Amino acid sequence: MNKVFTLLVFAGVPVSVIGSLLHWPSVIMFVIYCVTIIALAAFMGRATESLAVVSGPRIGGLLNATFGNAVELIISIFALKAGLIGVVLASLTGSVLGNLLLVAGLSFFVGGVKFKRQKFNVFDARHNSGLLMFAIIVAFVIPEVFSMDMNEGRTMSLSIGISIILILLYLFALFFKLVTHRGVYQSENSEGAHEHDEEPEWSKGKALLILALSTVAVAYVSERLVHTFEEVGEAFGWSELFIGVIIVAIVGNAAEHASAVIMAYKNKMDIAVEIAVGSTLQVAMFVAPVLVLVSLFFEKSMSLVFTLPELVAMVSAVLLTVIISNDGETNWFEGLTLLAAYVIMGIGFYLL
Amino acid sequence: MNKVFTLLVFAGVPVSVIGSLLHWPSVIMFVIYCVTIIALAAFMGRATESLAVVSGPRIGGLLNATFGNAVELIISIFALKAGLIGVVLASLTGSVLGNLLLVAGLSFFVGGVKFKRQKFNVFDARHNSGLLMFAIIVAFVIPEVFSMDMNEGRTMSLSIGISIILILLYLFALFFKLVTHRGVYQSENSEGAHEHDEEPEWSKGKALLILALSTVAVAYVSERLVHTFEEVGEAFGWSELFIGVIIVAIVGNAAEHASAVIMAYKNKMDIAVEIAVGSTLQVAMFVAPVLVLVSLFFEKSMSLVFTLPELVAMVSAVLLTVIISNDGETNWFEGLTLLAAYVIMGIGFYLL
Amino acid sequence: MNKVFTLLVFAGVPVSVIGSLLHWPSVIMFVIYCVTIIALAAFMGRATESLAVVSGPRIGGLLNATFGNAVELIISIFALKAGLIGVVLASLTGSVLGNLLLVAGLSFFVGGVKFKRQKFNVFDARHNSGLLMFAIIVAFVIPEVFSMDMNEGRTMSLSIGISIILILLYLFALFFKLVTHRGVYQSENSEGAHEHDEEPEWSKGKALLILALSTVAVAYVSERLVHTFEEVGEAFGWSELFIGVIIVAIVGNAAEHASAVIMAYKNKMDIAVEIAVGSTLQVAMFVAPVLVLVSLFFEKSMSLVFTLPELVAMVSAVLLTVIISNDGETNWFEGLTLLAAYVIMGIGFYLL
Repeated sequence: MNKVFTLLVFAGVPVSVIGSLLHWPSVIMFVIYCVTIIALAAFMGRATESLAVVSGPRIGGLLNATFGNAVELIISIFALKAGLIGVVLASLTGSVLGNLLLVAGLSFFVGGVKFKRQKFNVFDARHNSGLLMFAIIVAFVIPEVFSMDMNEGRTMSLSIGISIILILLYLFALFFKLVTHRGVYQSENSEGAHEHDEEPEWSKGKALLILALSTVAVAYVSERLVHTFEEVGEAFGWSELFIGVIIVAIVGNAAEHASAVIMAYKNKMDIAVEIAVGSTLQVAMFVAPVLVLVSLFFEKSMSLVFTLPELVAMVSAVLLTVIISNDGETNWFEGLTLLAAYVIMGIGFYLL
Repeated sequence: MNKVFTLLVFAGVPVSVIGSLLHWPSVIMFVIYCVTIIALAAFMGRATESLAVVSGPRIGGLLNATFGNAVELIISIFALKAGLIGVVLASLTGSVLGNLLLVAGLSFFVGGVKFKRQKFNVFDARHNSGLLMFAIIVAFVIPEVFSMDMNEGRTMSLSIGISIILILLYLFALFFKLVTHRGVYQSENSEGAHEHDEEPEWSKGKALLILALSTVAVAYVSERLVHTFEEVGEAFGWSELFIGVIIVAIVGNAAEHASAVIMAYKNKMDIAVEIAVGSTLQVAMFVAPVLVLVSLFFEKSMSLVFTLPELVAMVSAVLLTVIISNDGETNWFEGLTLLAAYVIMGIGFYLL
Repeated sequence: MNKVFTLLVFAGVPVSVIGSLLHWPSVIMFVIYCVTIIALAAFMGRATESLAVVSGPRIGGLLNATFGNAVELIISIFALKAGLIGVVLASLTGSVLGNLLLVAGLSFFVGGVKFKRQKFNVFDARHNSGLLMFAIIVAFVIPEVFSMDMNEGRTMSLSIGISIILILLYLFALFFKLVTHRGVYQSENSEGAHEHDEEPEWSKGKALLILALSTVAVAYVSERLVHTFEEVGEAFGWSELFIGVIIVAIVGNAAEHASAVIMAYKNKMDIAVEIAVGSTLQVAMFVAPVLVLVSLFFEKSMSLVFTLPELVAMVSAVLLTVIISNDGETNWFEGLTLLAAYVIMGIGFYLL
């Protein structure tokens, strides 16, 4: 399997470059780009896993989330520059839904088919639940409702204020996790989870190099991919909203997918959950507010006001995830429930 | 007490038939029908209890929920055929509210007055919470919000898609509970709860026969009852919505009521909760989507879009129930809180 | 510190009276009133603490909540009489937000900076969560949504019905806590928390006297304070909504603030939480419904219908608090999260 992906990477990247330069048909390029990104994501997954073995579950998960979302941040900045605010908000929504429902759902399901009951640190689960509630139910809902009675200028002021608070709280959350409360909330079974005897596939240096190169490649290919969307949408009858929320999110989060599911299959649920939920939090508390602030330097600035279907979908997803994951335990059916919610929202955005 | 109900059944059923044939005044027939159904429900409760003693709490609870909702499904299909979509949606809402707030509330209260603290399987509670969130907060909320920007055809497509997913997930939930994870999540005190030494009142065969006959009788009487609503509504000043949400639900769920409260009084909270919440889930994940699909064969098809008051009442009820029941423990005050929520919603629907 | 407050009280109260009689400028009086109230609040905190040492955490917390909200009730009745219904609803909202997010947030943060992990009775936390859900998510949300399709008379009937139920359930909650289930849900570590050897600062009689006198003084000064709001609002560019929700709530809940934070700093989290959440419940389940009923005797009656931003802010705050406090454990970051939510809502109401 690994060999197939290696082949796909070494074939996909040059073919992507060549096809892009020669202006091959969009639908063909769309498929090539997607396959290449997924192969690259598998590579990133292996590199992250090697690093995770060396650095422990938390840093490993954090690394993963960072490398997954760097791509997203870069693409979104390009889109903002082009004034595509609706697409950016849609892809942020898609990232939240994709990570919470699709990535976590697939991880719980695949892991749960192999293991009857899988556990992860219940303190981390609760910490994450609190932040999900804060980011989505407070920081995203408030501007939606309050902006109804506000003019554009005040809506933007509110968005800027909330963005700054989100970024600050995100930094404090890192400080809390890595400094003041590092190791304070260890679950009983996490001792065994460290498995210091396990050998990493790649050395730290090699893994970091591969991660860096893959990220650059993913960024390049993703950027090309975005430009095929309009024609692909026309060809398949997909709306911009559907492409933003579902397609961009699935392809854009392929890296998280690959590694979270692999971790769940190896029963390392702490890492799988850290990737899925941690990535969501990074999108909601870091990527989204940074984009709001960055947009101030562009012609059209972006407020933190989603469409009502986007917001309601995120709120539902958060409430469902919190209830399902708050006990620090999963099984295949909980995974299936999250996946079913994702499919429902997918149908909804497709028909919208 | 049992003798009174036996008398009422053997008097009520023939009187219902005679009164209906002789066209006695609606208000009088309304009272006769209600009393008969409640007496029949008590019979069904005893039969179910006998079966539960033989088959264990889960199957017992499942049986109960099935026999309670078969009636509802039949009545609703008749109503759909008559094009009364608003009444069907209202009675689905009423079933959800009635089971979550009235049945569970009364069980917790009655049981809690006798026992200081009552416990039930916390894993079942969490499993149920996840499904309640999925069914109400995702599957019912999404079409409500998304349909605002959709035409009728797309709303119907979304409703059909969601209905299929609901039914599939409901079947997977049964598979999970009865096959792959049967007995995996036993609570410590459930061992004692089996009480294999307890004698069932009726033999398995007799109990099944009585259940079947009672169901047929309840179906007949309920069907007659529905036709008295218009005149009774006029006589008492009740709106169609109030009759659908409150009256149909109370009388239609009398069976669940009777047996859930009896179980709670005997401190068998696993069964009481299974009846109340399991019945809600069956209504939301099976009865409602089946009705959507069945309605496609009738003149007027029914989408999964409730009125806003109906949806908000269900969402509130789910959030309240999840928070109250998620710890696997109840007392009289928690029961009273659920009942108070029911009364508030009852007043609301009465005044609407 | 205590000496400073003593000084401020003995200076502030007469200066307030004199300045008010001599009609000093509003902005100056505003500052004097605020400082006086905060100093009085500190006094009340010390008195309550003395009483809490004698009477145990529950009664102590109850006393505190009562003395904090008596002030609020009195001011609101004056405002109702003047027909300022919007201001009353805003200050009720502000009290809920202030207690849940600001008081609890500050307590968790200050306590958490000193202690790594602070625990409180998890049964109380769950009991409170259930009531918060009931009061805000059921009793406040239902009239908001249902009143959209109702005329004024029916909205008022619904409000009266809900108010009566809220007050009854509040009384039953006291009965549950103090009579039928007193001491049933003791946490393991609460034994040590009683600390019967601790000496109260003041005797019971002296503490009660100081509490009573301070309450009268706070009521007087608060009443004067309210009349400076219009001019202060003009001077600083604050809207009536912002003054009602944020300023009145901060100053009006200074007493809760002072004592909750002091308790948290002493690691008596049971009392700190009882003050913050108990006070919220008293506002939502007692002060608000009593005001609805009292308003019937005035020219303009007040229904239980908040503005949408007010309601959504309260709902978000409750969901966040429930998720954060439901595990019976806090740390500085959870406090900071609540404070961040408060700041977001503050900005929102400021810009509205």
